[in-house]
Amino acid sequence: MDQPSRSAGTVRPGGRTARVRAAVMEATQDELVEHGFHGLTMDQVAARAGVGKTTVYRRWGSRAGLVTDLMTELANQSTPHADTGDVEEDLRANALSVLGAITDGRLGATFQAVIAAATCDEQAAGALRVFYLRRIEEWAGVVDLAVKRGELPEGTDGGEVIRAISAPLYYRLVVTREPVTREDAERSVSRTLTAARAGAFVVRETAP
Amino acid sequence: MDQPSRSAGTVRPGGRTARVRAAVMEATQDELVEHGFHGLTMDQVAARAGVGKTTVYRRWGSRAGLVTDLMTELANQSTPHADTGDVEEDLRANALSVLGAITDGRLGATFQAVIAAATCDEQAAGALRVFYLRRIEEWAGVVDLAVKRGELPEGTDGGEVIRAISAPLYYRLVVTREPVTREDAERSVSRTLTAARAGAFVVRETAP
Repeated sequence: MDQPSRSAGTVRPGGRTARVRAAVMEATQDELVEHGFHGLTMDQVAARAGVGKTTVYRRWGSRAGLVTDLMTELANQSTPHADTGDVEEDLRANALSVLGAITDGRLGATFQAVIAAATCDEQAAGALRVFYLRRIEEWAGVVDLAVKRGELPEGTDGGEVIRAISAPLYYRLVVTREPVTREDAERSVSRTLTAARAGAFVVRETAP
Repeated sequence: MDQPSRSAGTVRPGGRTARVRAAVMEATQDELVEHGFHGLTMDQVAARAGVGKTTVYRRWGSRAGLVTDLMTELANQSTPHADTGDVEEDLRANALSVLGAITDGRLGATFQAVIAAATCDEQAAGALRVFYLRRIEEWAGVVDLAVKRGELPEGTDGGEVIRAISAPLYYRLVVTREPVTREDAERSVSRTLTAARAGAFVVRETAP
């Protein structure tokens, strides 16, 4: 995941419906950060948002519904991919954006809470998948541009390159529980780019 | 993580203490698989293992204590690294072992439960870290052997190569929630090896 603004739903133009959604999203994120998915309750979100319980139940249905909408909101707020004209710079921007997000207290905790939820809740898993696939697709654009400029081989799979940039950072964050540093981000870029330049991300069609 | 035998504590020689531990570890894993860390209780583990609650509380202290001991047991049961004389074959063995573990119903669920627990419990996070660092250190040996045989550049960081093999598989498993296939494992090997042969995993000493 890369860096959206730190809080979902803080700046929502529009009328009452938009204001309610913004307050509920903000409260959902607060509760997730403080108590995790297992500690998230519809009632507490409603109380924190200053919104009636009935409204929250009717509009979001369940805590997984809240999390799904929060992920949509975070994806909507995420920045478009970099376009510096240089693939290494663009991929570095991606790696540093991921690093920024996962080391941000609020955002990092939000994503860890949803990753944990996804291990035991199918709807949360779906929300997580949709979020990351949207962000991967967005950033895959930098690889397509690099191929057009002749920086990477024809047929390089942009989505796979972007996954390869993020993977070592998330692996340290949630699997080996090691610190994730700027050096890790830089290494991920240089290793991925070395393999991509050598054609290791060219996806060949499987013979029919 | 790579493939240990499917159940912790099933074959423990020794006396009553060893039998109690085996039963408790088995019950801990069963409960984790069925209910996750949040649904794990000392009382239920004791009941399932047919062991007195007092014994479980005295010996393991908390559910995080149970998880820590289970991870130690799984690490103890894990196989030594491959040694085929060929770095590509050895790394493939590692990738397929990881794939086998995470796609195994029981083991995969165990690891996902502990990954989820680690997002909100420091002791579980520590147990996870110790487990993976032991397995990374074990398999780093295949890289050291490859360097000695001249297959990889002098100074290649074995632990980093092994992390790079696992990272894309776990990223799909717990972050993007995508299927993890044999093809993903093969791609991870070829991409990592391409980068490693080109020297991208040579760690240079930072200037003092």
